[in-house]
Amino acid sequence: MPVPGFTGKTGIVNAISDAVTQMLDATARAARAAAVQLARAGRPTKDRALIAAAAALRARQEAILAANAADLADAPGLTAAFRDRLTLTPARIEAMAEGLEQVAALPDPVGHVLAEWTRPNGLQIRRVAQPLGVIGMIFESRPNVTADAAALCLKAGSAVILRGGSESARSAAAIRGCVAQGLREAGLPEEAVQMAPTQDRAFVGAMLRAAGLIDLIIPRGGKGLVTRVMEEARVPVLAHAEGLNHTYIHAAADPAMARAVLANAKMRRTGVCGATETLLIDSAVAPSLLPALVADLRALGCDFRADDRARAILPELPAGTEADFTTEWLDAVLNIAVVDGVQQALAHIRRFGSEHTDAIVTADEAAAAQFLNGIDSAVGLWNASTQFCDGGEFGFGAEIGIATGRLHARGPVGLEQLCTYRYQVHGTGQVRP
Amino acid sequence: MPVPGFTGKTGIVNAISDAVTQMLDATARAARAAAVQLARAGRPTKDRALIAAAAALRARQEAILAANAADLADAPGLTAAFRDRLTLTPARIEAMAEGLEQVAALPDPVGHVLAEWTRPNGLQIRRVAQPLGVIGMIFESRPNVTADAAALCLKAGSAVILRGGSESARSAAAIRGCVAQGLREAGLPEEAVQMAPTQDRAFVGAMLRAAGLIDLIIPRGGKGLVTRVMEEARVPVLAHAEGLNHTYIHAAADPAMARAVLANAKMRRTGVCGATETLLIDSAVAPSLLPALVADLRALGCDFRADDRARAILPELPAGTEADFTTEWLDAVLNIAVVDGVQQALAHIRRFGSEHTDAIVTADEAAAAQFLNGIDSAVGLWNASTQFCDGGEFGFGAEIGIATGRLHARGPVGLEQLCTYRYQVHGTGQVRP
Repeated sequence: MPVPGFTGKTGIVNAISDAVTQMLDATARAARAAAVQLARAGRPTKDRALIAAAAALRARQEAILAANAADLADAPGLTAAFRDRLTLTPARIEAMAEGLEQVAALPDPVGHVLAEWTRPNGLQIRRVAQPLGVIGMIFESRPNVTADAAALCLKAGSAVILRGGSESARSAAAIRGCVAQGLREAGLPEEAVQMAPTQDRAFVGAMLRAAGLIDLIIPRGGKGLVTRVMEEARVPVLAHAEGLNHTYIHAAADPAMARAVLANAKMRRTGVCGATETLLIDSAVAPSLLPALVADLRALGCDFRADDRARAILPELPAGTEADFTTEWLDAVLNIAVVDGVQQALAHIRRFGSEHTDAIVTADEAAAAQFLNGIDSAVGLWNASTQFCDGGEFGFGAEIGIATGRLHARGPVGLEQLCTYRYQVHGTGQVRP
Repeated sequence: MPVPGFTGKTGIVNAISDAVTQMLDATARAARAAAVQLARAGRPTKDRALIAAAAALRARQEAILAANAADLADAPGLTAAFRDRLTLTPARIEAMAEGLEQVAALPDPVGHVLAEWTRPNGLQIRRVAQPLGVIGMIFESRPNVTADAAALCLKAGSAVILRGGSESARSAAAIRGCVAQGLREAGLPEEAVQMAPTQDRAFVGAMLRAAGLIDLIIPRGGKGLVTRVMEEARVPVLAHAEGLNHTYIHAAADPAMARAVLANAKMRRTGVCGATETLLIDSAVAPSLLPALVADLRALGCDFRADDRARAILPELPAGTEADFTTEWLDAVLNIAVVDGVQQALAHIRRFGSEHTDAIVTADEAAAAQFLNGIDSAVGLWNASTQFCDGGEFGFGAEIGIATGRLHARGPVGLEQLCTYRYQVHGTGQVRP
């Protein structure tokens, strides 16, 4: 992802990049102006835009499918999985429309009073949720992200610049057209939701360096994309990095609960960031419980990478390396390590984990507290599946991703996390001594 | 602030930088290990460290003054203001010690339950405040920042790497020695509060690029320092940039309140970031009120830069340029512009302001609401001085700075804002459908 505008040495490269930089500048300035209007729009106006956008998606179904067919026709060499993510169907368009309506039904986060207190001198201080401003969303070729991200940013009162993968460019433009229609019908500026005006990769670089024009970058995609964004960005990033998650079966775990929770945590969906990648099991119960856990998962099609202590119990398990224990499989593969109690489990997680989501299964409340206070993960669970790390499951209604950094927001990012705050102070003429 | 380790081309520069990078690596890894212990330390342990550090400051007063004298002797060419900031006295050391004790008296932010709810499936979700991890503090030659920053980070459960200006290196090391003594007496690792092991500027560059080792950089100093940090950092930054603040005297302002608030907002202390730099006054009251406002301030030693409409009322006022209206004077100079109502005031602030702190003086509640909802500033005040933008005045007990970005925290940054959060989820064996 070179950024010729900032690093190029030839006149030609600089000329291209100047044009791209000017495009970014024009796009972002239009977004900022729209954001000022959107920030002051009330809930009814924003909801009207979302509902009208949903109607437009349904009304323009044929045109969207045609744009999608053109995208697919232009990309013959894709893998089956990539084609599947890229492909739209009437059912998927209906799901997008329903998604927009669901966001309309959520409460407005803007203006929510987060805290309120009065000082001894009579000053009344309120901390109030406020839109972030302009959000840059960089994602891969999933057309539905266009509708999801537009809806969440719009409801949170922020303008958004969407830069999706080039393979889905026509589909995304058709979907964005429906959102623009919704904005117009509500009397809001359609520049509040914009597509990148070029697929030139230099535009991504320009977005990442647009401090002062773009307030936040959200990357959504594979590790390569997220890593590049984090390395290049001059704008704050809400990154969604890897989920190397552990489920720890404590000595005092209920065996049936342990089996049900682990099978769900690993195999419900293996490709989501909340999936468990490593099983830690206490040595006191491993001999009796591990065979059943492994049999359950094997029946579901799971493969294994086991440490020596696990292989002493089940010698047929393939041997796991250090590299395996740091691998986010996102697949039907489970690392297994046997540990001696909570402290060893915590040490393993601190060494190999990614501070995303980790769970303990135990009937011992003290052990659970020790575990939950001992991990640094964004989400810690006691007696529940790691796959609950999800904005919908948290009750946020919708999410734009899972944040894995430590600043601003951690875990599922919904409307509340897409806002910032400000203070409103009411006085009666107070001056400071 | 060149970073030879990353940009240098000669072998010698790379060798120096490798050594500096290794120093950073060792410092930051020791800080991370200490942070794990500090994060789990209870309030009594942390408070014991703070109180013991205060005692050490008092006990070692002579040694600290000697170190400070050596710093001053080595820096003969400094301005009087710089020497004053650098100079320690018994009273200033006592103030630092009391500051540590005040932080000890504040509630522990760590573990505070920020939100709590139960899902329909019975999952109990809690959002709990948690330490950030390792904080890098980059500041200029104010020795007291060493004690202030160490105390706040320690109480917030985070380790800190302090990199102060080279002119105050001996003073800062002596103060840090007292904090280390406090940590030891409380049984905490002294690596929780470290000084940069070198004054090589490459170390600052290494700190700024230490993503994964340092969780947050806080720069505290002039515009040049903050701008450099924001441009170079790969680690999230909580920046304290400029405060180009406005006090807007609305047509319905009480004249006596307007005079008292403006005089305080501009002249209480002119060098603080909450000081007012520009007066906006409604055209309806400018002819009657502006002469008194100007006379008040002139009597306090203030100079002026006025627009044409203000000079039509008071022709002796010096003419202000566009550049003046974008200048954060931090001095006894006030820009003056006459406006026609709230909308024009908002347009002026949007064009020239820095989204830091802005105030309206009015008896008209609707006008106040329009103003407070119309600005994007971190702090908006109604009928109060802009100089109230301060952690102590907000009731935070102490502050590490004023954040001017939009992510994570805005306005005064106290203990609460120095924390992040995580989720703790209690289940009874739930699996995700």
